[in-house]
Amino acid sequence: MDTIGRLRWAIAEGYIPSASKFSDRALVSHETACILNAGDREANIAITVFFADREPVGPYRLTVAPRRTLHLRFNDLEDPQPIPRDTDYASLFESDAPIVVQHTRLDSRCAELSLLSTMAYAES
Amino acid sequence: MDTIGRLRWAIAEGYIPSASKFSDRALVSHETACILNAGDREANIAITVFFADREPVGPYRLTVAPRRTLHLRFNDLEDPQPIPRDTDYASLFESDAPIVVQHTRLDSRCAELSLLSTMAYAES
Amino acid sequence: MDTIGRLRWAIAEGYIPSASKFSDRALVSHETACILNAGDREANIAITVFFADREPVGPYRLTVAPRRTLHLRFNDLEDPQPIPRDTDYASLFESDAPIVVQHTRLDSRCAELSLLSTMAYAES
Amino acid sequence: MDTIGRLRWAIAEGYIPSASKFSDRALVSHETACILNAGDREANIAITVFFADREPVGPYRLTVAPRRTLHLRFNDLEDPQPIPRDTDYASLFESDAPIVVQHTRLDSRCAELSLLSTMAYAES
Repeated sequence: MDTIGRLRWAIAEGYIPSASKFSDRALVSHETACILNAGDREANIAITVFFADREPVGPYRLTVAPRRTLHLRFNDLEDPQPIPRDTDYASLFESDAPIVVQHTRLDSRCAELSLLSTMAYAES
Repeated sequence: MDTIGRLRWAIAEGYIPSASKFSDRALVSHETACILNAGDREANIAITVFFADREPVGPYRLTVAPRRTLHLRFNDLEDPQPIPRDTDYASLFESDAPIVVQHTRLDSRCAELSLLSTMAYAES
Repeated sequence: MDTIGRLRWAIAEGYIPSASKFSDRALVSHETACILNAGDREANIAITVFFADREPVGPYRLTVAPRRTLHLRFNDLEDPQPIPRDTDYASLFESDAPIVVQHTRLDSRCAELSLLSTMAYAES
Repeated sequence: MDTIGRLRWAIAEGYIPSASKFSDRALVSHETACILNAGDREANIAITVFFADREPVGPYRLTVAPRRTLHLRFNDLEDPQPIPRDTDYASLFESDAPIVVQHTRLDSRCAELSLLSTMAYAES
C-alpha cells in the first residue's frame, strides 16, 4: 500500500498576530503547519512564503523523519528570515516524499483563545 | 512543474455580522477569501456572490499579481455593490490562472474573537 | 463550462448543543449546512441523518432554486422528525444537480461564541 | 450507487490540552474523530498514532456498524496505550469499508470554549 499523502500543499491564509494575552508558549498567538510523514522515507520539504506586496521568501528547509509528525510553528521560522507579524502571508510546501499538511491558528489577542484549522490544499 | 491551484473555487458559507465589539480594522467582524497566486502569470478573477432569495451579483473583478497573495475582505467589496451585512451569501471564484482559495471569518459580535476557516471547494 | 459542485456530500460531525447563553436566533447554538446551487437547474436534495445507536432518519427533502444559496439549519429540520439535541449525528446529502456544501457550528453554550467550519466531503 | 467515503484518512493535527475549566464531559478539552459509515457493511478500522520523536503507536482497533456514526474521542483511547496530553500527535485511519472522517477539537483551557474542525485528508 502506498504511503498516504501528496508532494505539494498550499495554505492561502497566513497571519500571526503580534499580540497575545498570554506569555506561555502554548498560548501565545501562533500559526502552525502540522505535517505528517506516515511513510518509511525521510521527507525533505521546502517552504516558500508569499506576501501581498513583495517577492516570496524561501526556501525554508526542513526534514520530517519517517513515521513522524512535525507541528511547525510559522512563528519559529528564522532562516532565511522570520515571518513578519500582523502581516498577510500564504505558504507553499514542496516535499520529496508524500506528506499531509493541516493548518491551524491559535489566536489569543483577546482574553480567550480562538482556534481555526483546515486541511491544506494538495496536488500531485 | 505546474503551478499549484485550480481555476474555479466555491465558498458556500457567507455571513458578515454587522456588529463588532471592536472598531480596530483587524478586529472588526469580517469574512475573507485568502487567495494565493503561486504562479508566474497574473490571475484575473471574477467573483459572483449568491443569495437566498434574489439573483446573484457580480462579477466583482480583481487581479492577483504573480507570486503574491491577496487576503480579500468581503466587507471591502463595493463594485458592483457592497455585500449586505447579517445576510446569508455564498461565492464563486473564476480565475484565468491557477489559484488557491481559503475562507475565514473573524467574528467579534461578543467580547471575544471567534474564528473559522476552511479551504474552499475547487474544480478544474 | 459545467456548473461547479458535486451530487453527494457527507458531514461526519454533527452536534447541536441544547444550551445557549443567547435567545436571539442569530446567536442560539446551531449547526448549518450551507448549500450553494450555482447552476441553472433546481437542485432537489435528500438528506439522511445518521446516529450512533439507531437506524438513520430521512430523507429530509428540500429544493434549492437555481443560482441561490440556502443556509440550512439542522435545528430547523422537522420532517420526518427533529434532530435531537446534545446527540452525536452525521449527515449525507444527495442531490440531482451539482451543489457545494459547507458545514458550520455556532456554539454559545458559554458566554462567548465559538465557531467551526469545514467544506463537506464530496463525491461524484 | 456506491457508498460514500474512502478507505484511508489522515489527520495531521493532534493535541489534547490537559487543562480544562470544566469537568462536565461535554466541555472537557478533547479531540474527536467523527466517523461516518453510511454503507451496509461493518467498517473495521485500524488507527495509527504518530508522534514527533518516537515510533508510532497502534493499531487502535474499532468497528463502526453499518449506517452508524461514531464520534471517537482520542481522549478515550486506551489500548494499546492512552494518547499523552499536551503532546503533538497525528493519526492515520485505515478501514476495510468506505468511511468519512472529520476532525474536531473543543478547547476549554480558558473560561470560554474554542472549537476547530476540518474534514480529514482522504485517499482511495
